[in-house]
Amino acid sequence: MTKIWNNIPEIKSELDEVQEIINKNLKTKNTKSIEKVIDHLLKANGKRVRAGLLILSAKMGEYNKERILPLAASIEMIHLATLVHDDIIDDADTRRGIDSIQHKFGKDSAVYTGDFIFAKAYRLLAGDYDLEENRITDGMEKVCLGEVFQNENKFNSDMTVRRYLRIISGKTAAMFGLSMYAGAFESKLGNFNSRVIGNSGYYAGMAFQIIDDCMDYTQSSEKMGKNTKVDLFNGIYTLPIIYAVKNDKNNNIKNILNKKDITDLDIEKIFHYVDEYKGVEQSMELAEKYTKKSINLLKKVGRGKYAEITQNVLENLINRKY
Amino acid sequence: MTKIWNNIPEIKSELDEVQEIINKNLKTKNTKSIEKVIDHLLKANGKRVRAGLLILSAKMGEYNKERILPLAASIEMIHLATLVHDDIIDDADTRRGIDSIQHKFGKDSAVYTGDFIFAKAYRLLAGDYDLEENRITDGMEKVCLGEVFQNENKFNSDMTVRRYLRIISGKTAAMFGLSMYAGAFESKLGNFNSRVIGNSGYYAGMAFQIIDDCMDYTQSSEKMGKNTKVDLFNGIYTLPIIYAVKNDKNNNIKNILNKKDITDLDIEKIFHYVDEYKGVEQSMELAEKYTKKSINLLKKVGRGKYAEITQNVLENLINRKY
Repeated sequence: MTKIWNNIPEIKSELDEVQEIINKNLKTKNTKSIEKVIDHLLKANGKRVRAGLLILSAKMGEYNKERILPLAASIEMIHLATLVHDDIIDDADTRRGIDSIQHKFGKDSAVYTGDFIFAKAYRLLAGDYDLEENRITDGMEKVCLGEVFQNENKFNSDMTVRRYLRIISGKTAAMFGLSMYAGAFESKLGNFNSRVIGNSGYYAGMAFQIIDDCMDYTQSSEKMGKNTKVDLFNGIYTLPIIYAVKNDKNNNIKNILNKKDITDLDIEKIFHYVDEYKGVEQSMELAEKYTKKSINLLKKVGRGKYAEITQNVLENLINRKY
Repeated sequence: MTKIWNNIPEIKSELDEVQEIINKNLKTKNTKSIEKVIDHLLKANGKRVRAGLLILSAKMGEYNKERILPLAASIEMIHLATLVHDDIIDDADTRRGIDSIQHKFGKDSAVYTGDFIFAKAYRLLAGDYDLEENRITDGMEKVCLGEVFQNENKFNSDMTVRRYLRIISGKTAAMFGLSMYAGAFESKLGNFNSRVIGNSGYYAGMAFQIIDDCMDYTQSSEKMGKNTKVDLFNGIYTLPIIYAVKNDKNNNIKNILNKKDITDLDIEKIFHYVDEYKGVEQSMELAEKYTKKSINLLKKVGRGKYAEITQNVLENLINRKY
């Protein structure tokens, strides 16, 4: 379990219930191999940021646990399905500290397990919600489009900050925004307020993804090497490297990225240059701007204890080391 | 366009409208590469059997075109998405006579394009239908489970008829059943009648898939070679070969299948043995049984012109050469 929720026992325990809903929905005795895959997948717990934020924003209104937790579960399941599919593309060996599905069970299983989880998630959503479901599928579409746009920009050493922001807007921020919107709307906070809270979630998602990408360059060297290597080998250039390239007038980094084969030594050099050219520092400044935007929006409409807790969570996200 | 609907201009023209709905929903100007992929995909028209059967069963009741056509479109879109994902697994080069997405645009695009189509399909379904949406996601889950079960049984030269039937029950018949159920239910034919019509669709789907698999062994040699080779190389053994293996007491076929490398000459031999051991004949007998079951169920509850037309379509499916 994750550290984000450690100080909020109430949310932590509801997130455990969300996990139970996910487990119950995904466990299937129909097919041995999908069962094995799902069992394996459920061993790793994500941070469940999306579910947690959804619950928090719901608690700002007329909270109905029976309705909100399955909604939170479905959003985590959609996220889980996209992770399973991402791994196919990244040829990733690990995910959340365990073997990735495609590495352990093959691409075939990864494709279908992802689809199966999507179907189960949509089924949960087909429950009796006030929410137009369009909003959820809209979020899902944006995730796909973000991923596709990321693919289009692979190995593009002229990657711009703008393109990067468009990618993470789709692949991460859209679902964060949706989560907080959905929680608020289901708790009858009304159209306007829910949209503002949704936008707050959107900017929190932007910050979250930038921080995630920074952590690839600041974690312990072992972890760091592994994640970043995978991304770099796959031609995925995130904000720290984009900023560093921009600041690196001698094209040291570009010259490495444009090489045919990137060696371990090259990776070390890139790390060195990203540090030298303030890639992480500048990225974190932008993340802080997004966090501020997010919190300002939240303050506009959020009232009471849960708005405060949410604000704390958003502030903590920027300082996280996990 | 396909020959199944050639004699039913009314359905044919409504299927063209379904196609327009699909086009409109899938065209996106957001992302160049997904647009390219979708454009490519829309060039090939499938047979649209599922959509056609859905419309036909809906016409047996209080038909409301504005509600039914988007429903038919969503089911075709779910089918399309599974095809895109199937190709990743099969490493197929072509699909519906055109380059497969994964062959032309890479696995990455295939995964996300499939997911994107799913999201769009579910969005269409989120319209105002009487139907419990659970039934649709249920169908989708069955498709996934069928595919996974097929994977589990790859390269199993001891494949049984029973296992094969379980595979096609999931990957094909479930969605056929769902299509006819959904059409009937939306047209207010009531719970009982809709279920019977749904079961009729289910058996039609069983027959359809068996016939499809037989056609791999009866089409013109060029086409035949290509499709069947792919399946055999991938270790997918369908009913004609399962029956032939059963009848082949000298294990001629099994010995070939158990070889490490299957050559073109081996494929030719397999074709010869499948013919000699009546693999296709016996399969077609089973397909006819399913068709009869399907038609008998239809006769129980279907009344009027459209029940008759549906019956003709189901009968024609078994004689199709396309």
